[in-house]
Amino acid sequence: MIKVGIVGATGYTGVELLRLLAPRKDVSIEVVTSREMAGTAVSALFPNLRGFVDLPFTVPDDDVLARCDVVFFATPHNVAMRSARALMERGVRVIDLSADFRLKNREEWEYWYKEPHLSPELIEQAVYGLPEVNREKIRNAQLVAVPGCYPTSVQLGFIPLLEAGLVDPMRLIADAKSGVSGAGRKAAVGSLLAEASESLSAYGVAGHRHLPEISQGLRLASGGDISLTFIPHLTPMIRGINATLYATPVGSVSADDLQELYERRYRDEPFVDVLPKGGLPATRNVKGSNICQLAVHFLKASNTIVVLSVIDNLVKGASGQAVQNMNIMFGCAESEGLRTIALLP
Amino acid sequence: MIKVGIVGATGYTGVELLRLLAPRKDVSIEVVTSREMAGTAVSALFPNLRGFVDLPFTVPDDDVLARCDVVFFATPHNVAMRSARALMERGVRVIDLSADFRLKNREEWEYWYKEPHLSPELIEQAVYGLPEVNREKIRNAQLVAVPGCYPTSVQLGFIPLLEAGLVDPMRLIADAKSGVSGAGRKAAVGSLLAEASESLSAYGVAGHRHLPEISQGLRLASGGDISLTFIPHLTPMIRGINATLYATPVGSVSADDLQELYERRYRDEPFVDVLPKGGLPATRNVKGSNICQLAVHFLKASNTIVVLSVIDNLVKGASGQAVQNMNIMFGCAESEGLRTIALLP
Amino acid sequence: MIKVGIVGATGYTGVELLRLLAPRKDVSIEVVTSREMAGTAVSALFPNLRGFVDLPFTVPDDDVLARCDVVFFATPHNVAMRSARALMERGVRVIDLSADFRLKNREEWEYWYKEPHLSPELIEQAVYGLPEVNREKIRNAQLVAVPGCYPTSVQLGFIPLLEAGLVDPMRLIADAKSGVSGAGRKAAVGSLLAEASESLSAYGVAGHRHLPEISQGLRLASGGDISLTFIPHLTPMIRGINATLYATPVGSVSADDLQELYERRYRDEPFVDVLPKGGLPATRNVKGSNICQLAVHFLKASNTIVVLSVIDNLVKGASGQAVQNMNIMFGCAESEGLRTIALLP
Amino acid sequence: MIKVGIVGATGYTGVELLRLLAPRKDVSIEVVTSREMAGTAVSALFPNLRGFVDLPFTVPDDDVLARCDVVFFATPHNVAMRSARALMERGVRVIDLSADFRLKNREEWEYWYKEPHLSPELIEQAVYGLPEVNREKIRNAQLVAVPGCYPTSVQLGFIPLLEAGLVDPMRLIADAKSGVSGAGRKAAVGSLLAEASESLSAYGVAGHRHLPEISQGLRLASGGDISLTFIPHLTPMIRGINATLYATPVGSVSADDLQELYERRYRDEPFVDVLPKGGLPATRNVKGSNICQLAVHFLKASNTIVVLSVIDNLVKGASGQAVQNMNIMFGCAESEGLRTIALLP
Repeated sequence: MIKVGIVGATGYTGVELLRLLAPRKDVSIEVVTSREMAGTAVSALFPNLRGFVDLPFTVPDDDVLARCDVVFFATPHNVAMRSARALMERGVRVIDLSADFRLKNREEWEYWYKEPHLSPELIEQAVYGLPEVNREKIRNAQLVAVPGCYPTSVQLGFIPLLEAGLVDPMRLIADAKSGVSGAGRKAAVGSLLAEASESLSAYGVAGHRHLPEISQGLRLASGGDISLTFIPHLTPMIRGINATLYATPVGSVSADDLQELYERRYRDEPFVDVLPKGGLPATRNVKGSNICQLAVHFLKASNTIVVLSVIDNLVKGASGQAVQNMNIMFGCAESEGLRTIALLP
Repeated sequence: MIKVGIVGATGYTGVELLRLLAPRKDVSIEVVTSREMAGTAVSALFPNLRGFVDLPFTVPDDDVLARCDVVFFATPHNVAMRSARALMERGVRVIDLSADFRLKNREEWEYWYKEPHLSPELIEQAVYGLPEVNREKIRNAQLVAVPGCYPTSVQLGFIPLLEAGLVDPMRLIADAKSGVSGAGRKAAVGSLLAEASESLSAYGVAGHRHLPEISQGLRLASGGDISLTFIPHLTPMIRGINATLYATPVGSVSADDLQELYERRYRDEPFVDVLPKGGLPATRNVKGSNICQLAVHFLKASNTIVVLSVIDNLVKGASGQAVQNMNIMFGCAESEGLRTIALLP
Repeated sequence: MIKVGIVGATGYTGVELLRLLAPRKDVSIEVVTSREMAGTAVSALFPNLRGFVDLPFTVPDDDVLARCDVVFFATPHNVAMRSARALMERGVRVIDLSADFRLKNREEWEYWYKEPHLSPELIEQAVYGLPEVNREKIRNAQLVAVPGCYPTSVQLGFIPLLEAGLVDPMRLIADAKSGVSGAGRKAAVGSLLAEASESLSAYGVAGHRHLPEISQGLRLASGGDISLTFIPHLTPMIRGINATLYATPVGSVSADDLQELYERRYRDEPFVDVLPKGGLPATRNVKGSNICQLAVHFLKASNTIVVLSVIDNLVKGASGQAVQNMNIMFGCAESEGLRTIALLP
Repeated sequence: MIKVGIVGATGYTGVELLRLLAPRKDVSIEVVTSREMAGTAVSALFPNLRGFVDLPFTVPDDDVLARCDVVFFATPHNVAMRSARALMERGVRVIDLSADFRLKNREEWEYWYKEPHLSPELIEQAVYGLPEVNREKIRNAQLVAVPGCYPTSVQLGFIPLLEAGLVDPMRLIADAKSGVSGAGRKAAVGSLLAEASESLSAYGVAGHRHLPEISQGLRLASGGDISLTFIPHLTPMIRGINATLYATPVGSVSADDLQELYERRYRDEPFVDVLPKGGLPATRNVKGSNICQLAVHFLKASNTIVVLSVIDNLVKGASGQAVQNMNIMFGCAESEGLRTIALLP
């Protein structure tokens, strides 16, 4: 039985962790924390959990959390970097869904998050929790930084090309579209249905915090420098990320070769589904599921490779991937509790 | 191992049956039929099933279907009444999601469906598959008629009041709102996103085919005649039914008594969740789940009882309830495969 | 040239007033106030107004507002009742879109709004701005209380029946469904797209502030006491109210008589459109338009009259009706600036 | 008085033409044709037109159409090329909203539309109705080919860069996202709300019919060859196109220079609105309006120019632009009837 604590579970990644973990027989949810909701039943805030989660929210307490085998931080950035070390010193393993430990370069982190990093000594130790790249390191990690939603969809799409050295790494473009749940469960005018529905717009054009995280991953894949243009868009749906990736081949390529490359790279991955040649992934295909659906196209006329990548931002882009990491860390079957079929329609 | 066949699985109730049944270890999906899609992989039409369902659609063939323990008809009306008997004679149990066997009065069926009933001899034998009313009959049924979506939400809401004789049965009003998936996966201008989104309207005011089905169930609950005004509405969402029910008490009632009545009536029901007093069910609380969420309110000022009832029209309103029936018929735990938590947000 | 001021124009009724008034050649928008946005260009907040409105928001200033012929309060309640009198004393006419002056009974107002009314002496003077009832009083009013959105849709639907004495006034039911813009442009978790989309739920069952307003209007129409059950619902769309109204006839009625009654009652009304017999209004038919579409049905089987009423909550339910009042007050053609066709699809 | 006929007005471009033309005092709508709906009132199909359009649909009849000054073809391709010549020979001016006369290269047209062109002799005569490029030619045109929706948004975004020779014309990328109304008002499973809502996906990756049209326009702007990668996406909203355009500068550029370039290029254009530096256009800003909102960004880090372009696909992307052409052709003010403010929210 894996004893689990969840810190900051009033957001969408929190309720999604509970959706994925509560039905499991090998997991016991010990404590769910929230300062502001302390005393309220979790299922009063999230009525989908009625009958599944009987705990109340409680004020975070290290002594209680320390009894867990693993603690998830489903918090905004700036929480885990304050609290993780104390728990880790008491033997708890930490899976952080926030951005606190994603970037290996402390200065870069401080530049993008505009504040000092409070646990720089943990940065190196933290394992970037993208199983398709770091599975072995995750196995023994005490601290896992779960990748962001955009970074997951973009990296999984570009990695095969960069690892194979097939494209110009200095000319990468990622045009990404996200559902509104990516902005979190916080009151903000721009996320109101009356504002965000029936509209579509780019945002963060001048610089989005996921850019350095994606670039870090792509550099590792390419083994050298890369240059990425990343434009995120807000789209009128709840869940889902669709990333459309553009790259320029360095030599001659063929659609068949590309198809084979992707199929080979992800052959043994339980949560990456490469569609047959010509495929067109749609976010609805993965709604509520931990799968990343990919398709690779070669446009001969413009000599451009187009990769289409879709995930559910709250599952493979956050809580599902966090659970996948937990499964690896605790020796469970990697897909335990994650073999749910997407809700379609 | 329960061997399952699904007839007509290209619609939304078909893909939903597959979503619920494919992950089960005690169920084997033997055959999935569709005349028009024969030869195509099921997962090519429904990409959420990639990796879960490897079958192609095949032309319906009684010899193949007869090898199943149970055959689901996920078809429009007018199919099961042609095909069920032959399968039943060969020992197959039939769960019909269509309207063919829901009405006990043949003339009434023929009036509303405007055609002769082709298997009138099976009407009496068919068990109306509302477990909260007919659980024992379902256990040994060879033919189950799964209730419609509106009828499920409205009956579960009104039944406690009528069974207890607390309200005037001649003054019942059901104002029901449905998501667009209730219209099925068929090309129709009125169901286009560009038509149905950002709009809400009543339809079927002059008479909807679910009216006689609901009335039949309410008569049974009341033990006498009833009169129901039923107004369905099309609403801009994919899934969900919200039924707001109005009734006039015959004597003096109190909110506490009503609350206790509902809690008692559904105490042992795994899929009816009576909210605490003052509760406000929302369809999002049950999206993808087999639960019917209910709340009962008493408005003293206007001496009116208001019952709020929400379901997912494709789960408790169709395929989930069909699986619940199958579980009862085959001696599985009633909630086997149905303990999924609603997808929220 | 009508000189117009708008107080509190950062909400949806504010931007909608500007949409309707800015293109007019007989109207000059003099001042648009907002404390928190003072100094910002109106079109920076509402980019649809670029090229149409060149003003900045300014801090409200009575000396500036007093130069206007008419001042609209597009504010929450509790603002107009503080500020209207000073402007009125300087000769300004006031059109209040808030609830401050809608209820004639001060105690009732204070009960529902849970605070003392600060200008009780103006309550009697205020004209309830429903032109279909009060056109002549509006003409010379100095202070108009624009009806709420639900109250407009429900009153226009019930009034013909009550005026004619055709239904039991003690058994009125209004089941109303509203788009999310009705909650205003304010950050609130419940109005987020991720919360309100793909969901439908009743709210305010125990008592909604529009109930006393509607009841007041229905009492006037019936000439006696009435009893109304009013259940509002939140629906996943931006604009629109659909009210489905239920009434019990006191004598024998026919669909033809009812049809004629409605057509006669609203024959000369420019903004009430009675659909032909059997009609089914949809909110999309009136999106962006000032029209209330009505249909009346008689359900013989259950002896119930069902009236369907749809409006755009921001137009006929707020800003359009406010402009209609202004047109009447200033002797313009009543439909000046309001003859826009609904945006469909 | 401009006498107008509309052929094939049962689709979304048809009802949108009527929305824009019906309120005009200088336009008389003489005839609205539809074979399949002949005899039905236009306002019965489109209830938003009740009180504005009193005509019935009629079977197309050249003698009737020939009495018009101008005939709009709001049809799929393959209709105007059959019918335009006969009308033109009788002096009628034709504005074709379909693709029949957009491509100047007949072979290219036949390749993409997979059928012989039936009026090749009119191809050269037809004026491509993009006023920002062809205003003078439009003035005297007898046959105007209204640009497609994607082509309008993409060309207006790229033209300043190409005219100025600032970017590598062989490395153009257009990632475009469209609302579902772009697929037209025809029954198709993929456009159902239950399919297209809560989902986002690329389509037409292997080749979309708007690609050659866009390329033709961009070649004219650049004065030489160009290479464009164009990936359209289906998004869950009714109206709107958001095109995100990527280009590589050939020399050194600055954000200020680019801003000035765009402002200068479109200074006198009534329907192109260049946002201030750093602007982020959203489709909601132009919903129901004829405006194209543009913003140009320079990403120094990746040396990439990103242009954001939004339109309402049914207005500036179709019927509004058609009316703009008519205004130019008939000597009206170019913005006559088109100065409507976008519906926000």
